[in-house]
Amino acid sequence: MDLASPSCGCMSTTEHSPECPTGFIRNPHIARMDEDFLYHLGLGTKTHNLPEMFGDVKFVIVGGTPKRMENLAKYLLNEIKHKLPVGTQLSDLTGAADRYSMYKAGPIICVNHGMGNPSISILLHELIKLVHHAKCKNPVFIRLGTCGGLGVPGGTVVISDGVLNDKLNGEHEFKILGNVVPRPTKLDANLAQELKAVASPSDGFQTVIGKTYCADDFYEGQGRLDGAFCDYQEADKMRWLNMLQQRGVVNIEMESSMFAALTHNAGLKAGIICAAIVNRLNGDQITETKETLGEWQERPAKLLARYIRRQLGV
Amino acid sequence: MDLASPSCGCMSTTEHSPECPTGFIRNPHIARMDEDFLYHLGLGTKTHNLPEMFGDVKFVIVGGTPKRMENLAKYLLNEIKHKLPVGTQLSDLTGAADRYSMYKAGPIICVNHGMGNPSISILLHELIKLVHHAKCKNPVFIRLGTCGGLGVPGGTVVISDGVLNDKLNGEHEFKILGNVVPRPTKLDANLAQELKAVASPSDGFQTVIGKTYCADDFYEGQGRLDGAFCDYQEADKMRWLNMLQQRGVVNIEMESSMFAALTHNAGLKAGIICAAIVNRLNGDQITETKETLGEWQERPAKLLARYIRRQLGV
Repeated sequence: MDLASPSCGCMSTTEHSPECPTGFIRNPHIARMDEDFLYHLGLGTKTHNLPEMFGDVKFVIVGGTPKRMENLAKYLLNEIKHKLPVGTQLSDLTGAADRYSMYKAGPIICVNHGMGNPSISILLHELIKLVHHAKCKNPVFIRLGTCGGLGVPGGTVVISDGVLNDKLNGEHEFKILGNVVPRPTKLDANLAQELKAVASPSDGFQTVIGKTYCADDFYEGQGRLDGAFCDYQEADKMRWLNMLQQRGVVNIEMESSMFAALTHNAGLKAGIICAAIVNRLNGDQITETKETLGEWQERPAKLLARYIRRQLGV
Repeated sequence: MDLASPSCGCMSTTEHSPECPTGFIRNPHIARMDEDFLYHLGLGTKTHNLPEMFGDVKFVIVGGTPKRMENLAKYLLNEIKHKLPVGTQLSDLTGAADRYSMYKAGPIICVNHGMGNPSISILLHELIKLVHHAKCKNPVFIRLGTCGGLGVPGGTVVISDGVLNDKLNGEHEFKILGNVVPRPTKLDANLAQELKAVASPSDGFQTVIGKTYCADDFYEGQGRLDGAFCDYQEADKMRWLNMLQQRGVVNIEMESSMFAALTHNAGLKAGIICAAIVNRLNGDQITETKETLGEWQERPAKLLARYIRRQLGV
């Protein structure tokens, strides 16, 4: 059993086995299952007509909180001029599962992924199976989020062009049946450029491209001094942050390595666009007002909307 | 800098520095901060009177979803016969932060932790600082959750007496400033026995004590065959599950190693009690009805309520 090199016929998006018509999944067992129930989404192949419900999906947008994703779906609905039938409104498609919240705005789905790599991992496994079962055509996956900035002021929009783990490798190390299976944390370079291209000097904020460091914790894992535990000093922290900056890191968050590794493994076009809510070179605590933070968090959504409109020709 | 051995004066709950009057936190920087804003809880030392709000807290209960924790708080309120003022109801104490939901039922707080170690990590750092700032006296931390069972039928209640990581060690490996810092995943042995002692043969369900395996993923990380990716066979999976069972593992979930490592590091009395929603030796998919799953998930809460009533002398 060679875990690092999948043995099923579905290794590439261009050449794949009949078991995997979309090319997204790499799991020969799925085709042999009577039913595939996506437990955390509350959707299944027997209980729902997934191609009918989701076959038109072109953009899968994931982000932290349910409220933010609901607002995003409403915003995008308006931006792409998609009209809902009179007397209807968006409703949570996963309501019954009580784990994630998913909204569908025409060809766009917006789902919250919670916090951290394991939480987004569950969601992505089920979303990748969802676009597979629904037979979606070339869906683009984008994570919209917040992050700590490194040498960029709060409010800066950061587009990731790669993700580093704690060993400073461009890999996520999966632990599978007692083995460590590294997978590359690659993002689509063209998509990063396309997202950057829709930024404008008149935006009133800066948009930059750079590397993202992915941590498994907000406090000690990001070198903060203000967690419940801290056994290092300000100078140790600054040495580490400066070292990251020298490696090209411009932001730190908690979901990018899993997002990049899973979407890349599925052969999906994927990107990450985040708003920095603090410049970590200046401090640890998030001290901006709720209003300011709210305005900053809308910035990635503005670029996203322009990108989607351009893709749809709206 | 010796990261594995904290150098601040707050190493023990009996002997600690004046900087850390409660003994829970291990961070000399906190006492020097003007304000400590617990960002993901939306609570701060300057904006809120934390001793007044939370000084009476004796039990801190954490669990997966917001809805389940709200229902738990209402249930416990009734169980401990705590009356709210006429015309009032419980409300989410972290509503403004939009990350976690926290409810207070007399001396009990119930907070959802989302899914996975990183998500519960953020919450625990902030809860440990909260009980510190609020000057709580010997609060007991308990995680209530769901899990995959190993050799026990769905519906079994599992009380953890230790947590193993992917290397089968009783440690959680923290990644801090480029170093790997292992911390023991110890739970309170007396608390496990106290929780077991309130189970009764007439419960209509089995309650067992055993080791918990903590994974960072629901699919490949737990040896499931039904994720978006799977490069192993049924026989590989069964070999791994059987090996875990031989090591004393009775359940698998995704938050225990962080929960045990952080509460132990804080010198807190802590325990984990979960309902198994599937016997992994029989399959991967969660196929029970929502009603059955709902009833199973209430079982740990029943034991918890008895334990708390006994402690409070209700």
